[in-house]
Amino acid sequence: MKQMLPLKVVGTGSYVPPNVETSAEVGARIGRSARWIESRTGVRTRYRSDLPMEEMAAIAARQALGDGDPPDLILNASGVPRQTVPDSSVYMQSALGWEGIPSFTIHATCISFVVALHTAAHFLQSGAYQRILILSSDRGTVGRNFDQPESAALLGDAAAAVVVELPGDGEESGILAYRLQSFPSGADLTTIKGGGTHLHPNDPRVTPGDNLFTMHGTRVFRMARKIMPEFCRSQYRQLGISVDDIALCIPHQTSKRGVMAYTHADFPEEKIFSMVEEVGNTVGAAIPLALVTALDRGRFGRGDLVFLVGTGAGLSCVAMTLRW
Amino acid sequence: MKQMLPLKVVGTGSYVPPNVETSAEVGARIGRSARWIESRTGVRTRYRSDLPMEEMAAIAARQALGDGDPPDLILNASGVPRQTVPDSSVYMQSALGWEGIPSFTIHATCISFVVALHTAAHFLQSGAYQRILILSSDRGTVGRNFDQPESAALLGDAAAAVVVELPGDGEESGILAYRLQSFPSGADLTTIKGGGTHLHPNDPRVTPGDNLFTMHGTRVFRMARKIMPEFCRSQYRQLGISVDDIALCIPHQTSKRGVMAYTHADFPEEKIFSMVEEVGNTVGAAIPLALVTALDRGRFGRGDLVFLVGTGAGLSCVAMTLRW
Repeated sequence: MKQMLPLKVVGTGSYVPPNVETSAEVGARIGRSARWIESRTGVRTRYRSDLPMEEMAAIAARQALGDGDPPDLILNASGVPRQTVPDSSVYMQSALGWEGIPSFTIHATCISFVVALHTAAHFLQSGAYQRILILSSDRGTVGRNFDQPESAALLGDAAAAVVVELPGDGEESGILAYRLQSFPSGADLTTIKGGGTHLHPNDPRVTPGDNLFTMHGTRVFRMARKIMPEFCRSQYRQLGISVDDIALCIPHQTSKRGVMAYTHADFPEEKIFSMVEEVGNTVGAAIPLALVTALDRGRFGRGDLVFLVGTGAGLSCVAMTLRW
Repeated sequence: MKQMLPLKVVGTGSYVPPNVETSAEVGARIGRSARWIESRTGVRTRYRSDLPMEEMAAIAARQALGDGDPPDLILNASGVPRQTVPDSSVYMQSALGWEGIPSFTIHATCISFVVALHTAAHFLQSGAYQRILILSSDRGTVGRNFDQPESAALLGDAAAAVVVELPGDGEESGILAYRLQSFPSGADLTTIKGGGTHLHPNDPRVTPGDNLFTMHGTRVFRMARKIMPEFCRSQYRQLGISVDDIALCIPHQTSKRGVMAYTHADFPEEKIFSMVEEVGNTVGAAIPLALVTALDRGRFGRGDLVFLVGTGAGLSCVAMTLRW
């Protein structure tokens, strides 16, 4: 099985803020019981950050970098920006105390991290950059719509970071397969309608709800359920592998039901990594946080295949088979 | 001189909306004369779009695609999104009537297009994608702060599109050199502070001004003036060329003064392409619109070297030497 693109994750970091919110606490704000929340979303606890997203990212970044050199490229791969202009990556660089490092954002909402990882591998291969820091940091709790009990109960804040380089001689780490597809017929199922030039914050016609996260969860689930099994299987076929060859499936942590739906893509439950119970849906940070946490918990190791997969607002779908 | 990355622009398109605003008209809203505006910014006319950014982009895209096939990747490279979630690229795809094409955003505010072009060349080289549509579309007029006469007088709306593919056998089109650098010490010089999780639109502490474009023009100019001459010259040296070898310098159209400052990077005035007089500063659309317009006006042709250059909010700096 040939590497499509060599890439080695040489450092990982994460940040989950200290302020816990139990489902009972959130339930009080949305008029639902903790039991209702937990049965609908699977989320028991989520965390709320008092820090801006770039400082959350900087904490994760420092862990990922350790004593190593600064990166020569910073990619922001978050779901929602700090502010409209300039780009969030600049504020992340500022929080890390650097100046002059190239930086920009790759944005595909909740699946931004996987798209950024694929892009980073290209830059490593060409030699354009040698050491790339990818940062995903989101404060989903800021955009909660308490009139939408289910999505409001899901969202939590977190950040995660990876440092990627080319693997050394004889090392086989890399991306074996990758696929991205976007389905605009699902565009209006998951939205924050405001914030841009279409429903500008100062437009008197804009309601507070326009600036909050709105999700038609069941319709998203059904659309994803229809697309994703074959989307995943086509990747196994392309590689000539089955889920038996994959150490761990790491889905976007949409909801407990959304995570466990990858059983329909042939994964046994024990091979699907879920932490949505613990931290909720942390938007763009969810996939890299799950990756970093699963690694820390010994769920996979060097040489293993991991399957990063998810659907995000768009509806955008991504799957990547990565040799760690 | 070796291609660093092969890439051929096989189609171009642009959209400038029909609603003109003269400097006298804008002047009436900011308490300044047309003469004051024109002497400060160099802008005589700018255009205001009634269409959302994705429809502007779709008009430019259809021109760029002509009778050709749809792309296999859509990159949004605009300065400001349509809305916070989902990604603008999804709405662009929707406006073009497509479904299932991979799409995402590359964001580095005003210089997003050049970063996207560099990234696209990597995807072409690896074979990940064969025909990439890059779209930049901005409605800067929506975010004008009429309490800031100079920046309010600058902004205009526009869109531009290119389709890129690998060049054919024996064709030499490609990126010869590229450099990106971000300087967070300039982050607060050009901002739209709101729109994200830091100063959320619903936060009662947020003022209308926080949601509008704010620029300390003279400070940006001075910072760019200090960085850019050597930033450009290091690229000529790397390639062993001088500005004599370059057919046209196509800068980000910040202001007349900002555009003509590339005389300090050794370009004679007649080799610097300026259309800021006609359309103002069209944010992320400015560089590709200038590229497409200069081509249409016969300012360069196949085989020529063009120099795409600019500074954007960040402060982010980019320079690319492209063989057309």
